[in-house]
Amino acid sequence: MKHLNIVKIGGNVIDNPDKLALFLKNFAALKHPKILVHGGGKSATTLAQKLNLPQIMLEGKRVTDFDTLQLTIMVYAGLINKTIVSKLQAENCNALGLSGADGNIIRSKKRSAAPIDFGFVGDVLEDGIDTKQLIAYLNQDITLVMCPITHDGLGNLLNTNADTLAAKIAAALGHAYETSLTYCFEKDGVLENPDNANSIIHKLNKSQYVTHKNLGNISDGMIPKLDNAFEALATGVQHVKICNASSLTATGFETTGTQLLDE
Amino acid sequence: MKHLNIVKIGGNVIDNPDKLALFLKNFAALKHPKILVHGGGKSATTLAQKLNLPQIMLEGKRVTDFDTLQLTIMVYAGLINKTIVSKLQAENCNALGLSGADGNIIRSKKRSAAPIDFGFVGDVLEDGIDTKQLIAYLNQDITLVMCPITHDGLGNLLNTNADTLAAKIAAALGHAYETSLTYCFEKDGVLENPDNANSIIHKLNKSQYVTHKNLGNISDGMIPKLDNAFEALATGVQHVKICNASSLTATGFETTGTQLLDE
Repeated sequence: MKHLNIVKIGGNVIDNPDKLALFLKNFAALKHPKILVHGGGKSATTLAQKLNLPQIMLEGKRVTDFDTLQLTIMVYAGLINKTIVSKLQAENCNALGLSGADGNIIRSKKRSAAPIDFGFVGDVLEDGIDTKQLIAYLNQDITLVMCPITHDGLGNLLNTNADTLAAKIAAALGHAYETSLTYCFEKDGVLENPDNANSIIHKLNKSQYVTHKNLGNISDGMIPKLDNAFEALATGVQHVKICNASSLTATGFETTGTQLLDE
Repeated sequence: MKHLNIVKIGGNVIDNPDKLALFLKNFAALKHPKILVHGGGKSATTLAQKLNLPQIMLEGKRVTDFDTLQLTIMVYAGLINKTIVSKLQAENCNALGLSGADGNIIRSKKRSAAPIDFGFVGDVLEDGIDTKQLIAYLNQDITLVMCPITHDGLGNLLNTNADTLAAKIAAALGHAYETSLTYCFEKDGVLENPDNANSIIHKLNKSQYVTHKNLGNISDGMIPKLDNAFEALATGVQHVKICNASSLTATGFETTGTQLLDE
């Protein structure tokens, strides 16, 4: 089975031009096939502030009202996606940037307004990923750059969590590739002690995760990230890691980060 | 030779949701293969105003400084492109939105700063259009939605005139298709008397165009549009028209507008 690299990057890399340039250089050097999923970074928040667009948060999550949706489409599908694509092209990596609406490649459903109305947020449909099309692109050595904007097929674009999107794409391609899914963030891995950057947990299984969570070692933003990561592992993705984007080399993330274990 | 429809729409259609919806419904019903090239509309200007970003004009043309470039990428490649793609998908038209960086499909060169520095403006390179790739998409019945953002292959995105882009794409595909290139704008065609909406010039050749221009009947924004349109005709595009977007029917723009003549 051919090996596929799916890497998800977030704000920490996207917001820093030097870090992004280094990351993209290394990502471009990775063997085909590969997919890059990107989040939003702080650009959307900064732009919202400049536009005096209040950002409503519910239970720590941003509510995507209509104006915020327009803004995320501009920033994610426009500025960030095309900036990454053009930088990869300059590294001789033939990249193609896609939203879920492009080629109808990822269909989602607006999340129910009950119990909490998060607005124009889309959850990827069970059969919503056109894997045939993804594979056809990958077979042409095209590197896909996916932004977290999907659509419902009825003419509405929806904001989708980028971590979840990466997990869903990896799971959907699990039958076709031996897949490595890597979540990049600002630390060198999941830490046993959040105050000690050296306390990296090199291998983590689900029950250890639950224990660390109950002890309060793992908290806040790491919880949904790890939930997505373990979900990917449970749905057949072979290798799932949490790494620092700066640890990527041309051969991958082999020696660093936290490897999740399905046992 | 197979027939190809290339339609260019601008602000007049893009800025009006009802007009856009009607246009896209009719465009979706057009026979394959087809390409939609869109401009920017007023969204970019409105956003620049909200952000207090001064827009510098030189000789009637906007200067694309770095902040304006970022803004046009957001609006053109993000908001407008993906909105159109999702609406076409809802009309069962399998659309794929592309910037020139995607798949390295359209390469341009930053325009020289002399005699006038227009900033981050890109002119499509002579051999800058990957026609093989365009044809491969069209052969799969994928409708391409092209935004006027191109790239230089060195990691820089560039703002490109959408009228020119449509003409260049049509010319590049001239060897492969019998092509109809239609420029949509807010009037029913080129007018002999700008104050009389009924004075449509149904057929116009280059020398008549020059005469009308010298008489002052044709002026302002129509001049670069017609220059692009005649350039397309001169480079082998078979059918070039200037029409009102609202006159599009499922069979095309057959009975309306101004047809340019190559004689």
